[in-house]
Amino acid sequence: MARIVLGLEYDGRDFQGWQTQPGGNTVQDCLELALSQIHGAPVATFVAGRTDAGVHASAQIVHFDAIHARPETAWVRGSNSLLPPGIAVLWAKEISPEFHARFGARERTYRYVLLNHPVRPAMMAGRTGWVHAELDVDAMMVAAGALQGTHDFSAFRAAQCQAKSPIRELRHVHVERRGHYVVFEFRGNAFLHHQVRNMVGALVWVGLGRRSPDWVREVLSSQDRTKAAATFAPDGLYLTDVRYDVEWNLPAFDDRMLSFL
Amino acid sequence: MARIVLGLEYDGRDFQGWQTQPGGNTVQDCLELALSQIHGAPVATFVAGRTDAGVHASAQIVHFDAIHARPETAWVRGSNSLLPPGIAVLWAKEISPEFHARFGARERTYRYVLLNHPVRPAMMAGRTGWVHAELDVDAMMVAAGALQGTHDFSAFRAAQCQAKSPIRELRHVHVERRGHYVVFEFRGNAFLHHQVRNMVGALVWVGLGRRSPDWVREVLSSQDRTKAAATFAPDGLYLTDVRYDVEWNLPAFDDRMLSFL
Repeated sequence: MARIVLGLEYDGRDFQGWQTQPGGNTVQDCLELALSQIHGAPVATFVAGRTDAGVHASAQIVHFDAIHARPETAWVRGSNSLLPPGIAVLWAKEISPEFHARFGARERTYRYVLLNHPVRPAMMAGRTGWVHAELDVDAMMVAAGALQGTHDFSAFRAAQCQAKSPIRELRHVHVERRGHYVVFEFRGNAFLHHQVRNMVGALVWVGLGRRSPDWVREVLSSQDRTKAAATFAPDGLYLTDVRYDVEWNLPAFDDRMLSFL
Repeated sequence: MARIVLGLEYDGRDFQGWQTQPGGNTVQDCLELALSQIHGAPVATFVAGRTDAGVHASAQIVHFDAIHARPETAWVRGSNSLLPPGIAVLWAKEISPEFHARFGARERTYRYVLLNHPVRPAMMAGRTGWVHAELDVDAMMVAAGALQGTHDFSAFRAAQCQAKSPIRELRHVHVERRGHYVVFEFRGNAFLHHQVRNMVGALVWVGLGRRSPDWVREVLSSQDRTKAAATFAPDGLYLTDVRYDVEWNLPAFDDRMLSFL
């Protein structure tokens, strides 16, 4: 038996999220089908970040156990010849059975890319959020500061979230304007279901002047989901980094997105 | 009667090229359908660059004549509410009936974006070309120099090209490496059918070391299509600029692609 870890890139538009579903059109379903064909036996995968429908990943981490040995190139090139165009395995590596893609992940980074322009996206449809009115990024940055740190994030948690604890450590939040886009970065130990999209929704309300920057701190303290803004669209959300203890020595991801993200 | 000029952005993946077809799924078909609804009468459009199936535009120029007056915002916002997600009208302006989007265009710029990485694209599938072996961009740049200037481009012309003359002025060619991508820029008075994709195909052969940089000059001189490389995929091709005489005073295009292109 060998435990294999994979680096994965996917376009979330084409799939009903990561997690396997009876319908079958999820990233996990497509990946397990391809890996099973290479393996010649069923494969069950475990993932670092269970992304929702429409959410993208430039650097997702997955592991699985193989009964039959295959060269690392077979897991990469063989899978890529079988996977749909919106999913690619970037690298594969045999790793100790003590490694776990989900439980071993120490830190996750998500980016949210938002087109801030009077006209909706076309080339970037499904791959960027959109707000037509001009956003006050300075106000958003002030509001974002309140989210940083270890907090009970119940106010930004989806009703269907299954996490045992609503406490998460948000280590870094950044909001910046890049031309006609506003790019958010969130780095933390882990995230609750819809947490990033709910935080983006709240920060956008501040950016639009519907709420003051202080309001985000009040919402956070309230621990009350009904006080926050609506969940923002998945379109602009990308899982861009997952960190593990350095001794696992995982391959680095190449930047295959130019400076888009 | 008013002549209206539009700035257009579209994702070529979703359409069978610009030009109207019986099947109907072309950019022109979708745009004319939307404009006709705003107009309340049929609309016939003329375009600066008749892009092929799968080719994108970040800055396409279109004109049409309207019998019924509509505010410029109606042509923009009204159309965008009716168009499919992959097409957006960026701006509209009433202009003299002497303006012609196709015949008045003095210069067109195309970019070709090519992922040069061992693993095929996923997030960028359909929006970038792909070569897995490392390309020698210096050799490609030397070869590209031979294409610059006024030449008979018959060797890079599609068999079905309907242009009267194969003479075109290629004013500027540039090839550069940007991380894991190679980005080509071609600026010229006009281009023959498949000319850019055929030039990219030839330059890629040089970059792979299959041919010397001098070979591109020989192919150009031969005026023989059978001597050149295969037409490269449409996936990475973008119409990024069209120039007219300055007195037309057309609105500028905002950069809505971050630094991706």
